[in-house]
Amino acid sequence: MLSNNVIKIITSLSSKKYRQKYNLFIVEGVKNIGEVIKSSIKVKELFITEDLWPDEIAIKKTFIEEKDLKKISFLTTPNVGLALCELPSDPKLTNFEGLAIALDDIRDPGNLGTIVRLADWFGVENILCTKESVDLYNPKVIMSTMGSFSRVNVHYINLAEYLKEYKGPIFGTFMEGDSIYENILPQEGILVMGNEANGISKEIEKITSHKISIPFFGNKGNTESLNVAVATSVILGEFKSQLSKKS
Amino acid sequence: MLSNNVIKIITSLSSKKYRQKYNLFIVEGVKNIGEVIKSSIKVKELFITEDLWPDEIAIKKTFIEEKDLKKISFLTTPNVGLALCELPSDPKLTNFEGLAIALDDIRDPGNLGTIVRLADWFGVENILCTKESVDLYNPKVIMSTMGSFSRVNVHYINLAEYLKEYKGPIFGTFMEGDSIYENILPQEGILVMGNEANGISKEIEKITSHKISIPFFGNKGNTESLNVAVATSVILGEFKSQLSKKS
Repeated sequence: MLSNNVIKIITSLSSKKYRQKYNLFIVEGVKNIGEVIKSSIKVKELFITEDLWPDEIAIKKTFIEEKDLKKISFLTTPNVGLALCELPSDPKLTNFEGLAIALDDIRDPGNLGTIVRLADWFGVENILCTKESVDLYNPKVIMSTMGSFSRVNVHYINLAEYLKEYKGPIFGTFMEGDSIYENILPQEGILVMGNEANGISKEIEKITSHKISIPFFGNKGNTESLNVAVATSVILGEFKSQLSKKS
Repeated sequence: MLSNNVIKIITSLSSKKYRQKYNLFIVEGVKNIGEVIKSSIKVKELFITEDLWPDEIAIKKTFIEEKDLKKISFLTTPNVGLALCELPSDPKLTNFEGLAIALDDIRDPGNLGTIVRLADWFGVENILCTKESVDLYNPKVIMSTMGSFSRVNVHYINLAEYLKEYKGPIFGTFMEGDSIYENILPQEGILVMGNEANGISKEIEKITSHKISIPFFGNKGNTESLNVAVATSVILGEFKSQLSKKS
C-alpha cells in the first residue's frame, strides 16, 4: 500500500514547480525505466507491479498493486511501474562540434520528446531551448523520448543572447526559406525550429544567417505546414544525406 | 439543447462499427472543419458554438453551448465545433504513377494521421493499408491529418495479394536494410512501413524487392528505433532529395 503522502508527492511531479521543490522526476514505461537505470541518473525508488530488473539490487524496489500504480501513473494505461529519479544537474554548455538544434518556444511535450529521440538517432548531442519551452522532465516529454533523454544534452538558456554570440551558421526554418534540397547544408551550425503556432520569433529571425524550408510537393492547396517534430526529422535527414554524399 | 439520441449517435462514431452503420463520421478542429467544407465530402450538419463559416449557407448549422459540445467532442479541449459528415465511398485503386506508401498494420491513430499529412505534403497520392490497420475515419486519425485526409486516397486492401501482383519496386524498411543514403531511390514504387511493435510481417517481407533503413548516427547504444511516422518523414524526404538532385 502506498501512503497518501507518497501518492501526493509523486502526482505533484507533473508540475515543474514541484519537480524543483523535491528535486525529483518520474520515468514510466518499461523501455524508459530500463534506460534510466543504465544511465548516470540516480533512481531513488522503483514502484513496480513486477520485477523486470532482478539484477538491479542496489535500487530500492517497492512492490505495489495495479490499482496503486494507477493512482501514481501519468499514463492512461500504466505499464509495470514507475521510477522515481533525482533531477540531474543542468548539463554544461561548452563549445560544441557538429550540429545543434535550437527550439524557440516548443510547447508540446510530444514534440520535444520526439525531437530529443531524433537528436539521439542522428547524433545531435545538444538541444538549446528558450526558457519558455516545455520542460524536459515533464512526464509526457520523458515518456515520448523513449529513453533518449539520458543521452542528449538539453539546455534551457537565453537563446537570443546565445545565438548573437555564436560564430557558426544559424539555420532557421521559414515558409519562404530556400529549399533544403538546394541549400548546401554544412555539418556544423545551429538549426532553429520555431514554436508550434507562431514559428520563429522576430528577434531570433533577425539573427539567423540562412532561411531554409522543406519544399511542398503536393498539388492541392491549403495544406497545413508540417508538424515541427516531423519537419525536424526531414531536415536532420537531409543534413545527413548531404554528409553521406560528400564522404 | 442536443437530444440524448443525437449525443448517443455522435459519441458512438468513435467506433468503426457505428460509423458504418450510420454511414457517418465526425471532423473536429477549426482547420479540419474548414478543409472538409471545401472538399467533396458531404457535411450533413455542423454543431458549433460560433459560426466561423458564415458564407456556407447550404450546410445545416446547429448552435450549441460549450457544455453540449463537451458531451459530443472527442477532444480534451473542444474547439468551436464538430462537423457530422457522410462517409465517402472507398477511393478506387487504379494503376498509379509515382510513389505510394503501404502500411502493414499501423495501429496508432496519430501515426496514420501524421503519415496522411506527410503524404499530402510530399505529393504521395495513394496509401495502401492492410485491413487490420487503424481506420482513416477514426476521430483521432482525422484530427491529426489536419485536413489532409480529404486530399489523399487511403485504400484498405489485401496488401500481400496486391503487392504480389505489383510490377514496380517494393521498398521495405528493416533494421538491417541498406542505407537510404546509399540506395538509389526511384521515383516510382511502393514504400512499405511496418507495424509499430512488430515491423513488417514475414509474408510481406518476402515480397519486398529492396530492404532499406535509416542509418543510426548516434554514438551510444540502446537507442529505440524511430517512430514509424518520423521514419516515414525521413524516407519521403530522401526520395524527394534524390529527385531534386537528379533534376
